[in-house]
Amino acid sequence: MDFDFAALSAEDRYKLLIGLVVPRPIALVTTVSSAGRVNAAPFSFFNVLSDEPPLVIISVDAREEDETVPKDTAVNIGDTGEFVVNLVDETLLPAMNVCAVALPAGEDETAYAGLEMARSAKVKPPRIAVAPAALECRAWRTIALPGPARKLILGEVVQLHVRDDIVDDRLRIDQDRLALIGRLGGGGSYVRLNERFELKRLDVADLEARPAGRRA
Amino acid sequence: MDFDFAALSAEDRYKLLIGLVVPRPIALVTTVSSAGRVNAAPFSFFNVLSDEPPLVIISVDAREEDETVPKDTAVNIGDTGEFVVNLVDETLLPAMNVCAVALPAGEDETAYAGLEMARSAKVKPPRIAVAPAALECRAWRTIALPGPARKLILGEVVQLHVRDDIVDDRLRIDQDRLALIGRLGGGGSYVRLNERFELKRLDVADLEARPAGRRA
Repeated sequence: MDFDFAALSAEDRYKLLIGLVVPRPIALVTTVSSAGRVNAAPFSFFNVLSDEPPLVIISVDAREEDETVPKDTAVNIGDTGEFVVNLVDETLLPAMNVCAVALPAGEDETAYAGLEMARSAKVKPPRIAVAPAALECRAWRTIALPGPARKLILGEVVQLHVRDDIVDDRLRIDQDRLALIGRLGGGGSYVRLNERFELKRLDVADLEARPAGRRA
Repeated sequence: MDFDFAALSAEDRYKLLIGLVVPRPIALVTTVSSAGRVNAAPFSFFNVLSDEPPLVIISVDAREEDETVPKDTAVNIGDTGEFVVNLVDETLLPAMNVCAVALPAGEDETAYAGLEMARSAKVKPPRIAVAPAALECRAWRTIALPGPARKLILGEVVQLHVRDDIVDDRLRIDQDRLALIGRLGGGGSYVRLNERFELKRLDVADLEARPAGRRA
């Protein structure tokens, strides 16, 4: 089946893209307003991009009830230049779901979710104490998209907090203990990451040795 | 445990970031050189970002053997402005692993992998015939990072091909039939997406009704 994207509504493009580009990592982003009020909201249009500089990206859409009004997350990062990406495991999942609710602007989702916050080391927004890992970020570049109030925010990771039992002294991550949740399509679709497997990385010599070799 | 990212090597930052920001979606990207040679390479610093315009991002690093030389994918997109994101399921996985090998510049990974290609509708780079879905993209913006030859490439999706059995007439995606693979940490770590679950989305009324309510 083929879809000409210029002929589809934004809503239909959205449905197809979120259903097909899976699994997505989840950033539960904490920010503070210029008045110091905390905000938390989850995003799955999110990923790491680079180690030099260490960059992540989040794509922050408009408020649900008015697509010309940016979400608090984008407003706060615009005002303060700082945010924290809290990663989401099974324990944090119910609170993340509370933080996804469209509260009135300026309301603190973390209070509704009963989340204990912890002081960040280098940025003002607090991290979520129970999160298995938290990336403290400074806005590196912001790209405003044409049309509705969506912003692409690139952040430089300046500090990382990770629970002691998850990382060893060679900086290897224990995925069993990390136990993050992934995002699938729209609605409320998620995935646990227990069906892990290893695929041996190949090199040029492996390819030369394959009986199939080059295609004739 | 806390890590000051300014005090870590790029290698250590990379280890921590790829181990923690999981699961990542996989783009097996096909491009053509200005001379018409096909290239294919997988990337997991990849995600969808927006529906209006419909954007995806891939972060393309330098060649393994020389960090000042960009990979063919970045060179080709720079020359032609076009690429195709092929999504990777169990069937495509072994070929994706072949395409991950650092062949000499200009070599066609799809031939080594024995992949049959299909003509794209709107862009020159072919799609991989067996891929469950393929997003034809035109480069929308490219951000060159300081330091090594890494480029962030934002692409606008202009056309989508998806296997008939995966999408219904209301544009819902059947995740069982899509059966994509996700990327975990470094090395050769992947995950199957079978442990899916649904989380009911909440609204403001749900929060007001909760006995926990606001924090005292």
